[in-house]
Amino acid sequence: MFKAELSNPNILKTSFDAISSIVDEVQIQTDSEGIRLDALDRSHITFVHLELKASLFDEFICDEPEKINIDTDEFVKVLKRSKSDDRVIMSLDEGNFIITFEGEAKRTFKIRLIDIDQEPPSPPKLDHPTQFEIPFALLKDSIADIDIFSDKISLKVDNEYFRAGAEGEFGDANIEYLHGEKIETDAKSVFSLEKIREMLKADKFSDIAVIKLGDDMPLDLKLKMVSDDGELSFLLAPRIETED
Amino acid sequence: MFKAELSNPNILKTSFDAISSIVDEVQIQTDSEGIRLDALDRSHITFVHLELKASLFDEFICDEPEKINIDTDEFVKVLKRSKSDDRVIMSLDEGNFIITFEGEAKRTFKIRLIDIDQEPPSPPKLDHPTQFEIPFALLKDSIADIDIFSDKISLKVDNEYFRAGAEGEFGDANIEYLHGEKIETDAKSVFSLEKIREMLKADKFSDIAVIKLGDDMPLDLKLKMVSDDGELSFLLAPRIETED
Amino acid sequence: MFKAELSNPNILKTSFDAISSIVDEVQIQTDSEGIRLDALDRSHITFVHLELKASLFDEFICDEPEKINIDTDEFVKVLKRSKSDDRVIMSLDEGNFIITFEGEAKRTFKIRLIDIDQEPPSPPKLDHPTQFEIPFALLKDSIADIDIFSDKISLKVDNEYFRAGAEGEFGDANIEYLHGEKIETDAKSVFSLEKIREMLKADKFSDIAVIKLGDDMPLDLKLKMVSDDGELSFLLAPRIETED
Repeated sequence: MFKAELSNPNILKTSFDAISSIVDEVQIQTDSEGIRLDALDRSHITFVHLELKASLFDEFICDEPEKINIDTDEFVKVLKRSKSDDRVIMSLDEGNFIITFEGEAKRTFKIRLIDIDQEPPSPPKLDHPTQFEIPFALLKDSIADIDIFSDKISLKVDNEYFRAGAEGEFGDANIEYLHGEKIETDAKSVFSLEKIREMLKADKFSDIAVIKLGDDMPLDLKLKMVSDDGELSFLLAPRIETED
Repeated sequence: MFKAELSNPNILKTSFDAISSIVDEVQIQTDSEGIRLDALDRSHITFVHLELKASLFDEFICDEPEKINIDTDEFVKVLKRSKSDDRVIMSLDEGNFIITFEGEAKRTFKIRLIDIDQEPPSPPKLDHPTQFEIPFALLKDSIADIDIFSDKISLKVDNEYFRAGAEGEFGDANIEYLHGEKIETDAKSVFSLEKIREMLKADKFSDIAVIKLGDDMPLDLKLKMVSDDGELSFLLAPRIETED
Repeated sequence: MFKAELSNPNILKTSFDAISSIVDEVQIQTDSEGIRLDALDRSHITFVHLELKASLFDEFICDEPEKINIDTDEFVKVLKRSKSDDRVIMSLDEGNFIITFEGEAKRTFKIRLIDIDQEPPSPPKLDHPTQFEIPFALLKDSIADIDIFSDKISLKVDNEYFRAGAEGEFGDANIEYLHGEKIETDAKSVFSLEKIREMLKADKFSDIAVIKLGDDMPLDLKLKMVSDDGELSFLLAPRIETED
């Protein structure tokens, strides 16, 4: 038996807004510890990981591990119908993932389970030379700034500044943010703007983004709930460019 | 002579938002009692009835009965230009329906009268076994919920619950609302989602929807002003389905 | 050296929103007095003039006159990225117009300078018989009112009223505003609705529009900052119609 109850739908809504723009189908794994999900987009550029601990839920029952295979678009369409003060209950029957919103009325949605042949991917182990925090909103703004002139973005960090930038045919854009952290190694990589934009749809998960960078290494972006009960993280492969 | 003056445009705006999505042309009938309108959509599925009593208006003059034949889209475009605190005056000249909004400026719109050959339809007489009230917003939400999975909606009522639901290929949606009324006969019918959506555009008319249902009978949906000075009602033919 | 610093981006944003819908490329001229711009649209129907005096800026340095030739769309895209409490700094390097927004982060945009062969046009000298003021919002509303029935608009003024109106196939719209000013000569001209709509994008520049009209003469529309530090004005050629 599986049953998970949340006092509001917001964390699910924002997580799956990002997840559904990265992968069409997904396997949610549940056990007594909570819920987790690992997925890799079709082009093998973005890896996404979601973890919601049992302690996050008002009620969490999971007698034996379950694999919930669903179409992410269907789940997002259902989550979008929730009101922000609705109580949310997730459960399973024979062939359906059941989501119930309890507010003025009780609204029950059943999404058909699908077949997924592959095992979910394991997160690659990487050893980044730098780690720092920046406001999530700053990252989101930078993407829109850069979008005026380019479809790729370089992210750099040194001891003082985090910098996002791009040069385009009609102009350049550069964002400079005094991070106030201790960075021992400078790092720089270039990424696809579109791929970062997908990740940043999860804009209600956390106000702070924890970033790990390395020269021409994947971007490691982590969003953590203050309560430490949930985490949404992404790994994004760099674009290998020949530039100065 | 015909002249009708309202302290704000909101009831007209919300009524004709729904009416214009149901019928392209309409005959508004006026006499000393007030204004009324009866219309049937082209496919003979939705019947709409609007009644605004003379007592609703700040000033209402109608010496002899008039028939005002207009294109509903033109009227809605004009009504959308009103501000919610504009005074509204409706009148007639030789060939035009005249709508004036009085606010900071005086804005006058003349809509050409058109020819309509047919007499307006009479509302069919029906004897539904059940009647109950639900919040208008709940009905509007249910439509959007169901829309994820289906293009039709079943409405059911029993002694305890009002239920809206549908089963689709990719999932099901069911809404359950404890109505708190006395219902002696259960009833159920299936309707086109699109047709109900058209009616529900009148979302500023009343917070409460009065519903009459019967097995495979038309839906009777009535919106009443608290003051009892106005009523907007709809009859919607059921879809005849072979299902359990 | 050129450097101009503003405490917020709003005047630039609203001005160039209008300017970019009128002309694709523009020459901004700067000298110790401030910034000015004169441009004529491709069809020679709209003339636009912007003047921002040095006194408007928190800091204004311009050692020698400069001509800043830019693509207006690129500049608007950059300005749209500003937040309304960002400090704005404009400057120049060898081949770029540099715009910096200072808020939580420092965001720098460089727009490539372009070649413009022609000299900017000089504003035609016109002697209008009437001048009066009306609320900018009233003018903006009138455009949307008229748009229901026509693609041109007649503007009239007499000793009591300012009137905007049009007659169309399906209806008429007329706006009447008691201007409360002293007008000695009546005046009337007809204009393209689309062309006026372009000018009225500058809706944050001033609450008041100063209008000059004459029979079949261009519309002179002036927006003035309360502080008298800036002015945005337009001249729009009339449509010559054969009508009563």
